[in-house]
Amino acid sequence: MNAPLSAPAVPRYEQLADDIEAAVQRGVFGPGERIPSVRRASEQHGVSIKTVLHAYALLESRGVIESRPQSGFFVKARPRMHAARATQAAAKARRAGTPADARAAGKAAPATAAAPVDVSRLVLSTLRSIGAQDAVPLGSPYPDPALYPWRRVNQYANAIARRQASWTLIDDLPPGNPELIRQIARRYAENGATIDPDEIVITVGATEAINLSLQAVAKPGDTVAVESPTYYAMLHAIERLGMRAIEVSTHPDTGIDLDALERVLTRQKVAACMVMPNFQNPLGFRMPDENKARLVALACAHDLPVIENDVYQELYFGQTRPSSLKQFDTRGLVLHCASFSKSLSASYRIGWALPGRYRAQVEKLKFLNTLTTPSVPQVALADYLRHDGYDRHLRRLRRFYRQQARLMRAMIERFFPAGTRTSDPQGGYVLWVELPPRVDSMRLYQAALAQGITIGPGYMFSMRNDFHHYIRLNYSYPWTAQTEAALKTLGELIAKMA
Amino acid sequence: MNAPLSAPAVPRYEQLADDIEAAVQRGVFGPGERIPSVRRASEQHGVSIKTVLHAYALLESRGVIESRPQSGFFVKARPRMHAARATQAAAKARRAGTPADARAAGKAAPATAAAPVDVSRLVLSTLRSIGAQDAVPLGSPYPDPALYPWRRVNQYANAIARRQASWTLIDDLPPGNPELIRQIARRYAENGATIDPDEIVITVGATEAINLSLQAVAKPGDTVAVESPTYYAMLHAIERLGMRAIEVSTHPDTGIDLDALERVLTRQKVAACMVMPNFQNPLGFRMPDENKARLVALACAHDLPVIENDVYQELYFGQTRPSSLKQFDTRGLVLHCASFSKSLSASYRIGWALPGRYRAQVEKLKFLNTLTTPSVPQVALADYLRHDGYDRHLRRLRRFYRQQARLMRAMIERFFPAGTRTSDPQGGYVLWVELPPRVDSMRLYQAALAQGITIGPGYMFSMRNDFHHYIRLNYSYPWTAQTEAALKTLGELIAKMA
Repeated sequence: MNAPLSAPAVPRYEQLADDIEAAVQRGVFGPGERIPSVRRASEQHGVSIKTVLHAYALLESRGVIESRPQSGFFVKARPRMHAARATQAAAKARRAGTPADARAAGKAAPATAAAPVDVSRLVLSTLRSIGAQDAVPLGSPYPDPALYPWRRVNQYANAIARRQASWTLIDDLPPGNPELIRQIARRYAENGATIDPDEIVITVGATEAINLSLQAVAKPGDTVAVESPTYYAMLHAIERLGMRAIEVSTHPDTGIDLDALERVLTRQKVAACMVMPNFQNPLGFRMPDENKARLVALACAHDLPVIENDVYQELYFGQTRPSSLKQFDTRGLVLHCASFSKSLSASYRIGWALPGRYRAQVEKLKFLNTLTTPSVPQVALADYLRHDGYDRHLRRLRRFYRQQARLMRAMIERFFPAGTRTSDPQGGYVLWVELPPRVDSMRLYQAALAQGITIGPGYMFSMRNDFHHYIRLNYSYPWTAQTEAALKTLGELIAKMA
Repeated sequence: MNAPLSAPAVPRYEQLADDIEAAVQRGVFGPGERIPSVRRASEQHGVSIKTVLHAYALLESRGVIESRPQSGFFVKARPRMHAARATQAAAKARRAGTPADARAAGKAAPATAAAPVDVSRLVLSTLRSIGAQDAVPLGSPYPDPALYPWRRVNQYANAIARRQASWTLIDDLPPGNPELIRQIARRYAENGATIDPDEIVITVGATEAINLSLQAVAKPGDTVAVESPTYYAMLHAIERLGMRAIEVSTHPDTGIDLDALERVLTRQKVAACMVMPNFQNPLGFRMPDENKARLVALACAHDLPVIENDVYQELYFGQTRPSSLKQFDTRGLVLHCASFSKSLSASYRIGWALPGRYRAQVEKLKFLNTLTTPSVPQVALADYLRHDGYDRHLRRLRRFYRQQARLMRAMIERFFPAGTRTSDPQGGYVLWVELPPRVDSMRLYQAALAQGITIGPGYMFSMRNDFHHYIRLNYSYPWTAQTEAALKTLGELIAKMA
C-alpha cells in the first residue's frame, strides 16, 4: 500500500498514475473495467480533483485507460502489459507449485523438490501441480467430484437461500447446527453405533476436527505416536502445533503394530496416538476388530488419548460399515473425527468430532479457531441426509471404487516392472504401490509431472526415509484411454529408474 | 457407542432394544421417523434377523415404535419420553449458557458467571443466551442480518450451483479463489489503497486470519501486547495459542496509548502487538493518521509484528474509508486482517489476511488449519462484488448506523442514571457505556437476562478488572418500542445497583 503521509518524491499526480497503472498490471482492474470516478479517487487518495484529472490524463497518454463520455474512465481493452493474462499466468504459476515467495509472473517455474521433513510444503505444492495442469490426477488425494451428488445437495442449499431471508451466526454457534447434529447421530445409529448427539462438535472438515482434537489433548513439545506410513494431515497437525511425531510401523493389512506401540508407550511419555483404523490413507487396510479392541485397551492402560480419523467409514467394500475405535471405548479416551468430504461433498467442508471426555475443550477450541462453521452448508447437508438417497449414492460409490481398485491393480501388474507390489484396499479410493528400491519417488514425481501425470510421492507420508520408493495412486476417476496411457508411461519411467 | 465385542450381561435382543430406545429418547430418531429395517439392523449390529425381530417386538410392547405394513418400523408419534421436545430443550439449555459438561436435559440452567480470566467461556455463554431466548439483542456482537443483501448474495451462490456440476477443492487451495482475491484487491484500490493481490490469503472469517497471523509471528509462552479494553477475539487468539497478553491502556478517542506501549516495548520482550485502529470494538474510535504512522514507526524500531484487525473498515461515518496501518508499513511488519462479515455476509465466513513478510507462513498455516475455505461462498462473494451494488448497500448501512448511534446515545442519556458516560463511535455498530463504579456488569447481565435483555458485560474485553462497570451495547437493530423499553429497564436496574 502507499503511505498517504509519506512525502512524495515524484509529483503527486504521477505517483497516483503509477499506483493505478500498477493495479492494472496486477489485474486488479481488468481490461474493460471501470476505474474509480475522479471524485471518488480524489476523496479516497486525499488529493484534489485537479490532481486526479492530471493523473488520469497521464494514464490515457500512456494507453492504460480511456475515457468514455458520460461513463467514466475504463481500462483499455488491450493494455500494453496484457495484464489479465499475466495475472492468470502468475496465478497458474503459483498453483503449479512455485514457492510463494518467488512468484515470477508469466512463467511457471518447475515444481521444486521440497525437503522431505517439510511435509506440508511438499503436499501443498503437489496439490497445486494437480490443479494447475490438466494432468492425469493419479496423485490427487480427493475423489473425482463427478461421482458425488453435488447438484442435489446444491438444490437444498438453494432452497434454504430462498426460504430464509437472513441468517444469524448465533443459530449455529458451536457445537453446530442442531438438525445436522441429529442427522449425523441418526446415521451412526442406522449403522449400528449408538452415540450421544450431544457429544458431536461440527467443524470445518475433518482437518479442523483433527487439529482441535490434538490441541485438546497435547501441548507443544509433546510426542505423538502415528502410523508409518501415515496420512499426512496427521503430520500436519503435529507440525502446526509444534509437537513431535514418533512413527510406529504399520502393517498393510492389519494396521499399526500394537507390540511396537506398546514398547514405545512403556519406554517414553507419549501424549496422544493418531490412527486411521478404517481404509487408512495410503495403505487401505481395515484394522481387525480384535486389534481395535486391543488398541483401545492399551490406550486405557496408559491413559492415552487416541485420535481416530474415520473419514472413509462409509466407503467400505465389505457388507457392513466397519466398527470404529470409538465403539470399543468406555472411558472417553477416543476422539473420533470424520467428515462428509469423502462421502458426499468435499467443497462444503463439513466435518465433526466426537471427542469423548475432551468434548468441552474441543468445543471451546472450535469457537476460538474459526468461531462457527458456515450455516448454509450445514443445513443443506442436514436436509439432504433427511430426504435424499444417501444410501443409494453410497452403494453406487462403493461398488464403483471396489471395481476401480481391481482394475488399477491389474493395470499396474501389466505395466509396472517386476519388483512392484500393491496394497489390497478394503475401502476408499487410493492404492499404495511399492516400487523397486532404486526408484526415488520424488524423481519419479518430477519426471511424471513433465509428462502431465501426477502421483503422490511416498515422502509425503512419513518424516523418515522409509518410503522413498513408494507412491500413492488415486483410482476414483473413471477409467479412460488417457489413464491407461498414463500408467503405461509411469511403468516405463519406473523401469528406466530401476 | 456400544462395544460390539463386550460380553452382553443382558440378552442381546434386549440390549439392542435398549440402544434403540436410548437413540429415540435422545431424538436421534424423531417421532414418525423410520428406524433401520430388520435386515439392515441385523447386518449393522452383527446379530441375527431373529434377534432384531425380538428387539423390535420388545420396543413395540414398550410403546416406542410401531410397525406399518409394507413400510417398516417407525418411532411412535408421541413417544413416552417426549424425546424430541426433551432434546430441543436440551439444545436450548446448551445454547442458553449451561456449561457443556453439565447438560441437564429439559431445564435451562441460569447462565453461569464465568471467571473473568476465562474470557472465551464467558463470551460463548453470552452469545448463547442471545441466541436461545428471544431476547433484546443489545449484547450481540453481530449486526442485524436483516440489513444485509443476503438474498442477492444467495442468488449468486445459486447461479454457481446451477452452472457448475461439480467443484473441486483443488481450484481453491490456499491462498484461495483467484477471482475473489482480485475483487478484494480491486476494492482496496477503489478505496485508494494499492495492495498486491498476491499478498492476500483467504480465510474462514477474520477469526482464522487473526489466529494464523498470531501463530505466524509468535510462539507459546510469548507475550503479546493488546489494547485495553480489547476485542475479545484478540484475547481468544492469545489464549488458544498458550501466549500471554499484556494490556496497554487505550484512549476512547485516539486508541492505544503509544507512550505506554513504548515503555512496555523497552522494558520487556514483546512478540507481537494486536490492535484494531478503525472503529475498535468496543470503543468505536478511529485512530488518527499521525498515531497510526507513529505506531508503525514504533513497530519498525522494535522489529515488532503488528496484527491489525480491520473488519470495520467499510463501516465509517466520515466521508472516506479510514487509512489502515498497512498503508504506513514499508517493511512488511503489519499483518492486516479483515472480512466480509460486518459489511456483506456474516454466515458466509469469508475473511482474509495481508500478512506482509509473513505471507508464506500464514498461507501454510491456513493449509494446515482448515485446508481450504469453502468454494461456493468465495465465488458467490466475488460475483456479487463484480456485479452488484456493494457501494450502494454500504452507503445505506453507514447512514443507518450513524443515525442509530446518535439515537442510542440520546436514549441512554434519557434513561440511565447520572454518572453514565458513553463512547462516541466513529464507525461500526457498538457503543461502550461506562456505568457508575458500583454497578457490576456481570450482575447487571444476569438481572437483564432475567428480563429478556442481553448486554455485553465489560469483563469480556479484558483479563484485568478495570471494566467491571462497563457494558457494550449493539445499536444495529432498528429502533422499536421494545428496544426503548429495554433501555428503560436497563436504566432502572442500573439505578438500583448504583
